[in-house]
Amino acid sequence: MRLLLINPNTTTSMTEKAAVAARAVAATGTEIIAATSRMGPPSIEGYYDGALAVPGLLSELKEQRASGYDAAIISCFDDTGLEAARAFSDVPVLGLCESAVVTAGFLAQRFTIVTTLERSRVLIDNLVRHYGMGGRAKVRASDIAVLELEDGAPEAIGKLRAEIERALDEDGAEAIVLGCAGMADLTRELQEIYGVPVIDGVAAAVKQAEALVSLGLTTSKRSSYAAPLPKSFTGTMSDFSPV
Amino acid sequence: MRLLLINPNTTTSMTEKAAVAARAVAATGTEIIAATSRMGPPSIEGYYDGALAVPGLLSELKEQRASGYDAAIISCFDDTGLEAARAFSDVPVLGLCESAVVTAGFLAQRFTIVTTLERSRVLIDNLVRHYGMGGRAKVRASDIAVLELEDGAPEAIGKLRAEIERALDEDGAEAIVLGCAGMADLTRELQEIYGVPVIDGVAAAVKQAEALVSLGLTTSKRSSYAAPLPKSFTGTMSDFSPV
Amino acid sequence: MRLLLINPNTTTSMTEKAAVAARAVAATGTEIIAATSRMGPPSIEGYYDGALAVPGLLSELKEQRASGYDAAIISCFDDTGLEAARAFSDVPVLGLCESAVVTAGFLAQRFTIVTTLERSRVLIDNLVRHYGMGGRAKVRASDIAVLELEDGAPEAIGKLRAEIERALDEDGAEAIVLGCAGMADLTRELQEIYGVPVIDGVAAAVKQAEALVSLGLTTSKRSSYAAPLPKSFTGTMSDFSPV
Amino acid sequence: MRLLLINPNTTTSMTEKAAVAARAVAATGTEIIAATSRMGPPSIEGYYDGALAVPGLLSELKEQRASGYDAAIISCFDDTGLEAARAFSDVPVLGLCESAVVTAGFLAQRFTIVTTLERSRVLIDNLVRHYGMGGRAKVRASDIAVLELEDGAPEAIGKLRAEIERALDEDGAEAIVLGCAGMADLTRELQEIYGVPVIDGVAAAVKQAEALVSLGLTTSKRSSYAAPLPKSFTGTMSDFSPV
Amino acid sequence: MRLLLINPNTTTSMTEKAAVAARAVAATGTEIIAATSRMGPPSIEGYYDGALAVPGLLSELKEQRASGYDAAIISCFDDTGLEAARAFSDVPVLGLCESAVVTAGFLAQRFTIVTTLERSRVLIDNLVRHYGMGGRAKVRASDIAVLELEDGAPEAIGKLRAEIERALDEDGAEAIVLGCAGMADLTRELQEIYGVPVIDGVAAAVKQAEALVSLGLTTSKRSSYAAPLPKSFTGTMSDFSPV
Amino acid sequence: MRLLLINPNTTTSMTEKAAVAARAVAATGTEIIAATSRMGPPSIEGYYDGALAVPGLLSELKEQRASGYDAAIISCFDDTGLEAARAFSDVPVLGLCESAVVTAGFLAQRFTIVTTLERSRVLIDNLVRHYGMGGRAKVRASDIAVLELEDGAPEAIGKLRAEIERALDEDGAEAIVLGCAGMADLTRELQEIYGVPVIDGVAAAVKQAEALVSLGLTTSKRSSYAAPLPKSFTGTMSDFSPV
Repeated sequence: MRLLLINPNTTTSMTEKAAVAARAVAATGTEIIAATSRMGPPSIEGYYDGALAVPGLLSELKEQRASGYDAAIISCFDDTGLEAARAFSDVPVLGLCESAVVTAGFLAQRFTIVTTLERSRVLIDNLVRHYGMGGRAKVRASDIAVLELEDGAPEAIGKLRAEIERALDEDGAEAIVLGCAGMADLTRELQEIYGVPVIDGVAAAVKQAEALVSLGLTTSKRSSYAAPLPKSFTGTMSDFSPV
Repeated sequence: MRLLLINPNTTTSMTEKAAVAARAVAATGTEIIAATSRMGPPSIEGYYDGALAVPGLLSELKEQRASGYDAAIISCFDDTGLEAARAFSDVPVLGLCESAVVTAGFLAQRFTIVTTLERSRVLIDNLVRHYGMGGRAKVRASDIAVLELEDGAPEAIGKLRAEIERALDEDGAEAIVLGCAGMADLTRELQEIYGVPVIDGVAAAVKQAEALVSLGLTTSKRSSYAAPLPKSFTGTMSDFSPV
Repeated sequence: MRLLLINPNTTTSMTEKAAVAARAVAATGTEIIAATSRMGPPSIEGYYDGALAVPGLLSELKEQRASGYDAAIISCFDDTGLEAARAFSDVPVLGLCESAVVTAGFLAQRFTIVTTLERSRVLIDNLVRHYGMGGRAKVRASDIAVLELEDGAPEAIGKLRAEIERALDEDGAEAIVLGCAGMADLTRELQEIYGVPVIDGVAAAVKQAEALVSLGLTTSKRSSYAAPLPKSFTGTMSDFSPV
Repeated sequence: MRLLLINPNTTTSMTEKAAVAARAVAATGTEIIAATSRMGPPSIEGYYDGALAVPGLLSELKEQRASGYDAAIISCFDDTGLEAARAFSDVPVLGLCESAVVTAGFLAQRFTIVTTLERSRVLIDNLVRHYGMGGRAKVRASDIAVLELEDGAPEAIGKLRAEIERALDEDGAEAIVLGCAGMADLTRELQEIYGVPVIDGVAAAVKQAEALVSLGLTTSKRSSYAAPLPKSFTGTMSDFSPV
Repeated sequence: MRLLLINPNTTTSMTEKAAVAARAVAATGTEIIAATSRMGPPSIEGYYDGALAVPGLLSELKEQRASGYDAAIISCFDDTGLEAARAFSDVPVLGLCESAVVTAGFLAQRFTIVTTLERSRVLIDNLVRHYGMGGRAKVRASDIAVLELEDGAPEAIGKLRAEIERALDEDGAEAIVLGCAGMADLTRELQEIYGVPVIDGVAAAVKQAEALVSLGLTTSKRSSYAAPLPKSFTGTMSDFSPV
Repeated sequence: MRLLLINPNTTTSMTEKAAVAARAVAATGTEIIAATSRMGPPSIEGYYDGALAVPGLLSELKEQRASGYDAAIISCFDDTGLEAARAFSDVPVLGLCESAVVTAGFLAQRFTIVTTLERSRVLIDNLVRHYGMGGRAKVRASDIAVLELEDGAPEAIGKLRAEIERALDEDGAEAIVLGCAGMADLTRELQEIYGVPVIDGVAAAVKQAEALVSLGLTTSKRSSYAAPLPKSFTGTMSDFSPV
């Protein structure tokens, strides 16, 4: 089985970190093909970055078809472009947020997602409500920029831990979901420290992808995710750097 | 006051039709600047088209800055790119669906939205739920392709009317919302025939834009819609025609 | 265009303050006709006051018909008698709460309403839920009596500001809605201080009324807001027979 | 124990019918004091009638204090003025809709309320949602005017039965709630015919009133239902000053 | 009228305390038959205990049939086995949580339930949501083991009072529900101290049972609570003590 | 990896059918240990059967510990005893309904569950709402008794197919979930006939169990699913055959 892990931002070091997390949990016989978007922002922080990451994501989904992947994982906790990718693709497509909250739902009645910047907090809260988990999950921001996590900086980890501790104390959280692909390498350590399940979206999505492929299931093509109608698109994308 | 009406698809005849609807309701002193996206699909039908229309939309929002617009309206009932545009822009940004359902909510306790293809029905239903109107509004598809509406074809109008009649009979609809920018020219006639309020999103959005501008209000830049962080984007957009 | 601004309490100084706020935002060509209820309580604080303000409100709506108003605004944040007025009237009727939360919804994902007394807090929270904004808006009371606001007393403003600061800190509010018609004159100042959108219901309702009138839309008379059936009312309260 | 049964419309024959239903289920030792509003509409059909029935209702609640009632029941399925009455009164106040849906909730997972005119259907549906039963109860209108029920007309009963049959067939209703005080006399017969619980609001409210009184419980005076603040009411409507 | 009060745990002192509370509020002519489960855990704290208390409960419901009870009350705030008992029984069956929250709903817009251990908090919160009161009621745990309450220990009462005070201060609670059958004897005292309605589930359930019986209503046997189909059960229950 | 598949009813032929379905999808290296409850009803149809199946289920979970299973699957679509089992067990426990609706949620925006008897329809609908999928999934009963499915009877399959066709036509279902463990063998055939994803709970649960085990995750022992407190249980279970 081949799973395409696409990082929808253009930072290859994040792709590599996610690929390590994916390969660490992949079943024997599952190959992880890691790909990085070649168009768009170097990190996804908020709605603007997210929207402009989608063409690069879809382009990569198309490019990588030659590799014969059996399912695709969008390696960003905002589930960037997930619905468009499902409409586009013939194989199952998974997002980190949806995979992680579903996984947490099997383990805990109430849980908290700790994400990076405040600008992503409500965005993720809206996703979680859309997935039907709004009454069970709380979202917290830890005031860490996505790329800070690349450095393994102790300050970033300190902020993350402080927010997890607030989740346990104030929210009555029974499990913790790490709300950024860049936190994947901290999962095991945090689970040991806090003694509750700590769920990483990359790992969760790999297992959901394996599940769907091995069940012979793929996205319904009836109605919502019907294949795009044939039409001629116009133009080439210009530079969207906000500055 | 200058309102930018951006059609996020690339079909200029749709832009023109929407501009006519916008100008018909604009207040004295409101100038409608009509713009058409120069990148992306010729019509937006479903998640794939919608996602790929966003870069062209944002690009046009940026390009048209020189025109000094005071607010922008995204002329598509799917509210394509609305949240990204709000994060990007310093002025208010309105979508047709949100504007129309809010307007209907002042006039009726229960109403029905009639859209085009089945593939857009659940997408719009999800939007409506997100806007808090899920308990009051039902969404129906009338099996008309967006561009069919361009022709003023009697067959398309017949399908639309049949679905409105079902909404009145079966849903107990007290008002009707037209769920596609391409239906704007039919509003008055349908309202006369059926004797209930018929709301067109283009007209509704023009009035909401005028309202916000004249109140001196603009999108909050605290948290969710904070301005995009400065970062370097990569790449140029390739061709996304699905075939 | 003539908009009837009815204060459903009997305090004319509050009417005047609201009229100033209304005229400050009214479009050129919009005339604000300010009217004060001649029956009922001098301020509306809780369910009892609210219910007993309705006959005076409906009576005034009827009396003022001679003025030829095109839409009516009920100048109280509790949306007192809104549904009865919509059933009674042939023209659009707007409430402050509904207008304000809808306006806030275009500008912010999450916002907080700051009202006067604790006894109005849950009442407004129930309204907000009914309008579909329960998941996005929080309501706070600032422990100010409605008529205290008439005096421009610094103590009242201090309490209001303290509560706004709590909303920003604790609720993650991206915008603030002022939950009492008597706060209208503070809008601009508070917006400057806090740097987030501050929405006043009087101003918001004026723009919604202008929008509906200029769109040629009025309340649906199908089902919920059907005109009252002709029947003889009894009692000394003055005649409320709808015909 | 004395229970005040107030009919908020001015039709004494409806009061009498409801009093018969109330006395039929009252416990030994419970006295039913039946009172009819002396101000307002002869029947309550929709929001306008309902709002204008409230002053007469509150006036009667005050007048009857001399009778020493221990709880009050508002004998209308729209729960007209319920919240204002709770704020006004020192004793428990019950409405028919809230009492009936609560009772049905102990007996069935899903049930249907059959009311009179279409104009009351959404009004009651909104009440039911407010009481938290929106996911369990459906509301249907049977196209009967309230006063038609006074005549025991077979045509009205035929329409009611037809709608109950649709509820059983199409809604999977496990119980039926009669959505008008004027249907109280049909309860037993309909229950026998259809073999499912049939709940009348008058009877349900009598038992809830007895329950609260015998438990020594009354409406909380903290926050929402705090006693009206002392203030001078204005106008010819009669004096509603709460003190 | 005979009401069967079944304690689904095996601790007879708890049965006796609940029976005292039940008899204190029972109407003249209502006989309380107190029964204690003869199988299962000595107290119900969490899902495991609850599930294993059900056979003993159903067995006792069956055994006590000879006593000719007219309704049954399951004397545990977790509403243990309530739905199974309703399917099994021909007479109405009441639970403490459902009865108490419904009663609170007649008295207050917002209220707080104070239960025993943290492990029961979310369990009760889920019940409350299922009963439609999730938006109105908050659940708090006071960190008291069920059997601690048996001793009338001042420490347990101190913890309970501290949590009630937090509910009043932080939740804006307008009423308090005691979330354990073992707290029934504290109701009156707490109500006097705090001046808000304090609702005990045992008392509330007695009145709901009396109400249903005197109205001649019983559980619908259509669909959800249809009588169990005749089938042969296998086996005898082993020891489930978790250690 | 060893997965315990426990059939909570006592019919071994159903266990075998489910075991075949489980083994058909299990990963290489996953051993399915099939076990049948030795206490309780031969099929689970409604709340009564479900509640009385739990002790047998928990007993079997305990008995099979010696086998060293890594996760357990409760092989009944009602998710019988799921929460008690999670509290009891140290390893992950999966239910068919939760696993299946989560799986469907990755593939379709809207889907329909087709179950057996009407008495199970609302029970499953309540589960689905609890899992947050109430707005996306509809539940239909096909009027088939559970054990009818054992015979491979064409009549039962005809009823099931008729209901699936109604789901596609009337509900706009984009996928179908088979709402009974006894339907597992029909999955592939139905998917081929209808061209939409058809999801079987047994297969879905196997993959979720494999996912959790391979991720090193297990049920949170904080709060809701904390291990049962040590206490002495009383009694032996008698015969609960309802006749």
